[in-house]
Amino acid sequence: MTYQASNPHFAEDIKQSFALQSIMRLIDAELNLVEPGIVEIALPYRADLTQQHGYLHGGIVTTIADSAAGYAAYSLMPEGAEVLSIEFKINLLRPAQGKSFLARAEVIKPGRTLTVARADVFGIAASGARALLATMLATIICLQK
Amino acid sequence: MTYQASNPHFAEDIKQSFALQSIMRLIDAELNLVEPGIVEIALPYRADLTQQHGYLHGGIVTTIADSAAGYAAYSLMPEGAEVLSIEFKINLLRPAQGKSFLARAEVIKPGRTLTVARADVFGIAASGARALLATMLATIICLQK
Amino acid sequence: MTYQASNPHFAEDIKQSFALQSIMRLIDAELNLVEPGIVEIALPYRADLTQQHGYLHGGIVTTIADSAAGYAAYSLMPEGAEVLSIEFKINLLRPAQGKSFLARAEVIKPGRTLTVARADVFGIAASGARALLATMLATIICLQK
Amino acid sequence: MTYQASNPHFAEDIKQSFALQSIMRLIDAELNLVEPGIVEIALPYRADLTQQHGYLHGGIVTTIADSAAGYAAYSLMPEGAEVLSIEFKINLLRPAQGKSFLARAEVIKPGRTLTVARADVFGIAASGARALLATMLATIICLQK
Repeated sequence: MTYQASNPHFAEDIKQSFALQSIMRLIDAELNLVEPGIVEIALPYRADLTQQHGYLHGGIVTTIADSAAGYAAYSLMPEGAEVLSIEFKINLLRPAQGKSFLARAEVIKPGRTLTVARADVFGIAASGARALLATMLATIICLQK
Repeated sequence: MTYQASNPHFAEDIKQSFALQSIMRLIDAELNLVEPGIVEIALPYRADLTQQHGYLHGGIVTTIADSAAGYAAYSLMPEGAEVLSIEFKINLLRPAQGKSFLARAEVIKPGRTLTVARADVFGIAASGARALLATMLATIICLQK
Repeated sequence: MTYQASNPHFAEDIKQSFALQSIMRLIDAELNLVEPGIVEIALPYRADLTQQHGYLHGGIVTTIADSAAGYAAYSLMPEGAEVLSIEFKINLLRPAQGKSFLARAEVIKPGRTLTVARADVFGIAASGARALLATMLATIICLQK
Repeated sequence: MTYQASNPHFAEDIKQSFALQSIMRLIDAELNLVEPGIVEIALPYRADLTQQHGYLHGGIVTTIADSAAGYAAYSLMPEGAEVLSIEFKINLLRPAQGKSFLARAEVIKPGRTLTVARADVFGIAASGARALLATMLATIICLQK
């Protein structure tokens, strides 16, 4: 689906908001793509983000998927709005292995109050091969300031 | 509900496994309680775990809820088993404020292959007052080595 | 948790609305309990509501859980409001056997716009014994007319 | 994604199993498409399947999505296997209006024990126009007889 952003500064606003998410700095996550209704966040593998088997912890997979979904929703909201995830569900499809990870979120259904987005998280091997690790379905609320 | 653990070393095994979850050290999370079918994880507030409004990031709320749910399931599994979260859904009920946070998970339905657990995450104010911030429903698979 | 209803006619309004849910007549579901924040719906077993193994179909388990959750939310809303389920997740814990079934929903977090409710569905044997068959977590939106 | 079925009789087996789901006859649902990893179920609008506003009840939207997801998973399983939905989450995106409805499920991740499928439910207007009403993410377990 192709969306039109109503906020002409959406990309800049998302970059500013992302820079305020201190957790993203802690884990070295970065914005990879910002388009109307689509946001990608990239994360390098780090041994201190893992669970007991050395895979990326499901909560960190979720962290980048959640932020990507929230900003995908935000990209379609009016200037000055604020967003909050109200709930999401994620299926962890494979052990989260990779040299790096990419969360790609797309809005499925935009709305004035509620937006629904899907986010897929990929593991990227040293060879560049991608594997789908997880898929999320998220509901985001728009709060007018 | 009251459960009986079949693995006599479940508490020790959980502590060892938790110590291997490097993400828990990164965010300063600690095991608070380990009983058959019930596990609690505590997390102090830290400014570098937050989203753009200074609240604990939903992904970190999820990280401690997911680990608590996984270990609650693990506590009822046979010795030598391994656990993996296959999916969860979380409702973020209030902005995640608090001086510290507590995820408390309880098994709802144990099973040989699949276990379902619920996890609630509380924000704890300086006064000691608790507020329910989030509730998760998680499905965990038991893998026999 | 104990809630106070703001709409003095909430019980009557729920009965009227329930009577308009024609699907409830088709499957013989009935309101069993209506209190502030709590609603129960009862359903007798019928062979024409089943899936291929003769268990109650998961979609019908969901139908009574969803309506119970929606009306539990509705019970706490202002007079004249309307409710819509925006999403839910359900874990089907056991094969849905029973002489009858009971969905019991309770509000976890009421809100002006969004309410979160939990619903448990029980199978009731001829002996009266109850088994937890499913648990749902649902988000309901309140629309002011 | 394109899948290969291992059971050469999968389409016939699905038709036979579907014929045993008595709930499908009660609501007039029919199999519309059966391919490896993809199943569609069609449902005509009927006034006795609705909620209080005359829209198709969310539980019935869920019923056809759940069966479609289960059979999409079943299509990739070995001969003689049985399937059970263990959990799903559905977002109800728009009021469920239409002259008829179509649930289309696709497997996202097949597995020996667990399969994850997505199902979209569309409302189809008299003009033939389709609107996405709901999207489901479901986990299905394969039981070897």
